[in-house]
Amino acid sequence: MRPSHRQASQLRKVSIARRFTRHAEGSVLIEMGDTRVLCTASIEDSVPAFLRGGGQGWVTAEYGMLPRSTHTRSGREAAKGKQSGRTQEIQRLIGRALRAVTDLTLLGERQITLDCDVLQADGGTRCAAITGAWLALNDACEHLLSKGKVASNPLRDHVAAVSVGVYKGLAVLDLDYAEDANCDTDMNVVMTGSGGIVEVQGTAEGEPFTRAQMIELLDLADAGIGRLIAHQKASLAL
Amino acid sequence: MRPSHRQASQLRKVSIARRFTRHAEGSVLIEMGDTRVLCTASIEDSVPAFLRGGGQGWVTAEYGMLPRSTHTRSGREAAKGKQSGRTQEIQRLIGRALRAVTDLTLLGERQITLDCDVLQADGGTRCAAITGAWLALNDACEHLLSKGKVASNPLRDHVAAVSVGVYKGLAVLDLDYAEDANCDTDMNVVMTGSGGIVEVQGTAEGEPFTRAQMIELLDLADAGIGRLIAHQKASLAL
Amino acid sequence: MRPSHRQASQLRKVSIARRFTRHAEGSVLIEMGDTRVLCTASIEDSVPAFLRGGGQGWVTAEYGMLPRSTHTRSGREAAKGKQSGRTQEIQRLIGRALRAVTDLTLLGERQITLDCDVLQADGGTRCAAITGAWLALNDACEHLLSKGKVASNPLRDHVAAVSVGVYKGLAVLDLDYAEDANCDTDMNVVMTGSGGIVEVQGTAEGEPFTRAQMIELLDLADAGIGRLIAHQKASLAL
Amino acid sequence: MRPSHRQASQLRKVSIARRFTRHAEGSVLIEMGDTRVLCTASIEDSVPAFLRGGGQGWVTAEYGMLPRSTHTRSGREAAKGKQSGRTQEIQRLIGRALRAVTDLTLLGERQITLDCDVLQADGGTRCAAITGAWLALNDACEHLLSKGKVASNPLRDHVAAVSVGVYKGLAVLDLDYAEDANCDTDMNVVMTGSGGIVEVQGTAEGEPFTRAQMIELLDLADAGIGRLIAHQKASLAL
Amino acid sequence: MRPSHRQASQLRKVSIARRFTRHAEGSVLIEMGDTRVLCTASIEDSVPAFLRGGGQGWVTAEYGMLPRSTHTRSGREAAKGKQSGRTQEIQRLIGRALRAVTDLTLLGERQITLDCDVLQADGGTRCAAITGAWLALNDACEHLLSKGKVASNPLRDHVAAVSVGVYKGLAVLDLDYAEDANCDTDMNVVMTGSGGIVEVQGTAEGEPFTRAQMIELLDLADAGIGRLIAHQKASLAL
Amino acid sequence: MRPSHRQASQLRKVSIARRFTRHAEGSVLIEMGDTRVLCTASIEDSVPAFLRGGGQGWVTAEYGMLPRSTHTRSGREAAKGKQSGRTQEIQRLIGRALRAVTDLTLLGERQITLDCDVLQADGGTRCAAITGAWLALNDACEHLLSKGKVASNPLRDHVAAVSVGVYKGLAVLDLDYAEDANCDTDMNVVMTGSGGIVEVQGTAEGEPFTRAQMIELLDLADAGIGRLIAHQKASLAL
Repeated sequence: MRPSHRQASQLRKVSIARRFTRHAEGSVLIEMGDTRVLCTASIEDSVPAFLRGGGQGWVTAEYGMLPRSTHTRSGREAAKGKQSGRTQEIQRLIGRALRAVTDLTLLGERQITLDCDVLQADGGTRCAAITGAWLALNDACEHLLSKGKVASNPLRDHVAAVSVGVYKGLAVLDLDYAEDANCDTDMNVVMTGSGGIVEVQGTAEGEPFTRAQMIELLDLADAGIGRLIAHQKASLAL
Repeated sequence: MRPSHRQASQLRKVSIARRFTRHAEGSVLIEMGDTRVLCTASIEDSVPAFLRGGGQGWVTAEYGMLPRSTHTRSGREAAKGKQSGRTQEIQRLIGRALRAVTDLTLLGERQITLDCDVLQADGGTRCAAITGAWLALNDACEHLLSKGKVASNPLRDHVAAVSVGVYKGLAVLDLDYAEDANCDTDMNVVMTGSGGIVEVQGTAEGEPFTRAQMIELLDLADAGIGRLIAHQKASLAL
Repeated sequence: MRPSHRQASQLRKVSIARRFTRHAEGSVLIEMGDTRVLCTASIEDSVPAFLRGGGQGWVTAEYGMLPRSTHTRSGREAAKGKQSGRTQEIQRLIGRALRAVTDLTLLGERQITLDCDVLQADGGTRCAAITGAWLALNDACEHLLSKGKVASNPLRDHVAAVSVGVYKGLAVLDLDYAEDANCDTDMNVVMTGSGGIVEVQGTAEGEPFTRAQMIELLDLADAGIGRLIAHQKASLAL
Repeated sequence: MRPSHRQASQLRKVSIARRFTRHAEGSVLIEMGDTRVLCTASIEDSVPAFLRGGGQGWVTAEYGMLPRSTHTRSGREAAKGKQSGRTQEIQRLIGRALRAVTDLTLLGERQITLDCDVLQADGGTRCAAITGAWLALNDACEHLLSKGKVASNPLRDHVAAVSVGVYKGLAVLDLDYAEDANCDTDMNVVMTGSGGIVEVQGTAEGEPFTRAQMIELLDLADAGIGRLIAHQKASLAL
Repeated sequence: MRPSHRQASQLRKVSIARRFTRHAEGSVLIEMGDTRVLCTASIEDSVPAFLRGGGQGWVTAEYGMLPRSTHTRSGREAAKGKQSGRTQEIQRLIGRALRAVTDLTLLGERQITLDCDVLQADGGTRCAAITGAWLALNDACEHLLSKGKVASNPLRDHVAAVSVGVYKGLAVLDLDYAEDANCDTDMNVVMTGSGGIVEVQGTAEGEPFTRAQMIELLDLADAGIGRLIAHQKASLAL
Repeated sequence: MRPSHRQASQLRKVSIARRFTRHAEGSVLIEMGDTRVLCTASIEDSVPAFLRGGGQGWVTAEYGMLPRSTHTRSGREAAKGKQSGRTQEIQRLIGRALRAVTDLTLLGERQITLDCDVLQADGGTRCAAITGAWLALNDACEHLLSKGKVASNPLRDHVAAVSVGVYKGLAVLDLDYAEDANCDTDMNVVMTGSGGIVEVQGTAEGEPFTRAQMIELLDLADAGIGRLIAHQKASLAL
């Protein structure tokens, strides 16, 4: 029995609000149960130095948690003067996931930065960030298209992410904090709309896991991501 | 004529949502027109080193802007590795304003940290932060009271803040970004529920201002803060 | 009775030495009683990136306290690796005050940096810094004029600053440390030679203050700044 | 055809030197082809603050690359003043991998730090670091045992790691730099001596990968790690 | 011919003012020609962690240059966020020189910090700092003695320093900036009152130097330091 | 009697391996007894800003110690976020020593960086670094020559370094850690192949030293450096 009384393969309630703030070219508030992440996309007309003059664009991400998004307050990274290893790991992951479905040449020599800020955390923030950031990125790409700055939308496919894990011996989908803090294995899976795997990160928190468990988890994730991409599509249709 | 077509002495639409996030002991989303600030209050059972063993508590504040809360994206302070002078100035101001109405001895040897994070900026973020943070602080104090940790609510009075300024020769209340970026004088005023002045910070951005103008601005602020405190009271009554 | 036995409206002894060090284009040691601040003006033939190519100049300030300028040694900011919030707040104030009386277009595309370093502190260091820095800036402007680099002195007016406060119920001028550490209200006022207000920063350290007290303090400051500007003029006449 | 002319399932030449330096309680130079990593284990009689008084120990890792371990010189992190996101990601991975096979309660309230410094890089440095660090950690544990500080060796199992990937459509084992820089999918796998999976990190650098490819890669890794653990055992037998 | 028309073995004019500022237990302004360094000694009743509980004290130094003490303004280290290698090298040198003549056991478990801040630089700042800091340290030691905190003055001897160098083929004493910037060899020598050498740091800026030149420079330094120690004694006699 | 049973004027066993790693243009592992330093030379086709456009090149050095190169682990400077004063002092010394024998004009507008990383420390690491770095620099210069990028090898002479000191009253050559930690005087001497002195840094750790002792130490160093340069030549002949 999961703490939330969900079925093993049941997602939390998904809620998506586009145009949540007004300055950004894309701005999406995504909620997966009690996890709430604000994802904004900002377009800049320049690229990092290592790409300058090459004619292609770049998509990157930054991630942060508001100090009291968590059960107990965690120190503000701006005050500490550095981003934690966890923060950097997550923002690198988000960036890779989005670049995997972006045609950077079509984007042209500009950069889109996805800021993913966690307003409230209840597990699965990095996955929610990826799923929400794709929508913000898409809105920014449509913005470029409407301004005639790109010939077509540089996004080639959807991308979304979900966590899966082994909780009390049971493979479960979309872990909340209560499960995440007590599971044996935790795996984050990022997949495209056409079902390709973009990233898999599985960690045995307690006992090592087996090849069979890994395959079971992948299958759970596959189904869950399909439903998340349906949510993305429904949100675009509004 | 103000860009927003408001009267000189008219506040923007004020909207206050308490218990906006669920982990913090106080959590308030305050909106002044398009300015939106999330204020959370976090209680910790220890005080900074300089107060340890003295039997009194502490109230402090941290302030941040999400990178794309503004018209163009500004770099994330956590990534830059330091907080700007502006950020530090604002968070020191918020802390002083709240301590001015708190009985730190009644609070006992614990610290309450107010995190004020700007989700969307349209001028007046520091004033909105003070007005909203007072509510979050009050909720945290009531939380302590309900747990029997303090004998009575350590807040002795309300506190709220508003900006006033001289825009195209006219003294106006509650400047939005369009006014703030083009005014001659900008003044932030912090006052208590009983009408005492806690802080005045006036700056001539263009022409110096006169003693008479200063008094006119103070009077405008006085009236505006009265209405903001009425909003605080209405919110507490819900 | 003030600890220094001064009258309520009496400044401390003011002493100003121009050309105190020899490398800087302006170098002024200002003493207000036991407070001693060395202010130097340095001219550079470039401006910050945000102004480049715009044809106008910039005036900025940096502030520091020698570690043992104070009663007990405070850590060296260079060793700690960052400037405190207080330091940044003060140097931003000094810069704004000086820019308020400078014609940046006349200055041309160059920057003048005012370094204000406190050799000995006894209250009122930021105000002394502004009053002294104006003189150093003026010497640097005259230097530019004498070299034919500007058509006329870009300074349009004097600027000076003084602190006022409510000490044991009495409004007093030019607080020293003994008063500053025990006052209810502390206000720093910056004014021009023609009597315009450039900046007012008033803080209730203890009880909030009233509109009437604020006006009384402003009047004290007005008279005090008049005398400080007379000192500036006397120093220029030497 | 692989650039190195190896078979798809062939490891590079593995070479392990224990006691490579003399001060550390464990010191191992591991070479996987041209990749050379020096792994040292250092015992300290204290644990991080979050574990103090709990009776259990801790195992952690730090990772670094000598500036010219790479084809072109990369800036020294000590000079830049911070560790890159990549460095932090890798050292967190190494620490997790080793803790997965350590009985931290048996270790007692002490910390063992594994420093993994890359002398020469040719792909697969994080995997070589894990495989080598396990040996250094084991030597440190044996040192504790010989001193009577632990009742038995706290290591419950071997752990080793290898990279696998899809290079020009072919699933290959133990990628060198030439392959790593041009592969579609890159996956790092960490497994125990008893065949449990501790960590899987797979990234599509180009095209997304399929569930079938993922399983093929896992099987390659499984075989490769078996051989690496045989190398560890052979080295211990010397 | 030296730029200053001094004899080869002639010091610049030496001027020493004790009790230059009033808060520090020792405060000395030393001038060697146009070089001016303010040296303050601050007593703290604790020692660095590595000495705690050992019953002995510590003497340490910090060094800084005001930004415009030099011909062109150099960036403020507090603003840059770190001390340069040169600064650290110099403050380590000053600390070693003073500890060489201090009985740290007699001092007891307290630390004296010497802050050496350059108000104006014209070559030889580190040597002036050592010579002046000894006086400030002595005043602080006498302060401890007068308060009954030490049984006798922990300073066992004088210490002073001077630069020597080969300028246009000539061995000269006490280089000013014009010589320092153009000399072939630059050597800083620190000696005690009884003629022992505490530190020698010689660098060939241009051509390497010979054993004979080195001895000639040492002899010049020996004579110069004798005269500097006479200045210290004369200052103590005032 | 020296702890190592060496004669007073006896060097430790010297061992030099060129081409120790394969990416760098010069790569030398030098061992002086148990001290082992890896020195690599990296060529970059640009110079620091202060030299740009001047037609001359630059030689610079960076120094680091692996955390467990020492008896007890010392914190990783990259993790601490800054290089210690000692590190900066040493890398500045290495750079000066190498530039003293390099014709920077012949080198042309490029920079060679010498990374000196201590794998194992047993005293004398900075001297070993200089002696080894000269060889790495020479290999890099020969590389430039073989590519036709310089007209002749810009190195005008050899340079090498050794420590000397007074240990238990005896002047000894090439101190190991056991001597270094217990000596009265420690002196590092850098000399060229033609016998010129490039740098002398002598420090009295305990008792001050005399002019006579200094000369005796210089003579010891002179002889030792001669033998080190013979080792350099032998290594080049391989």
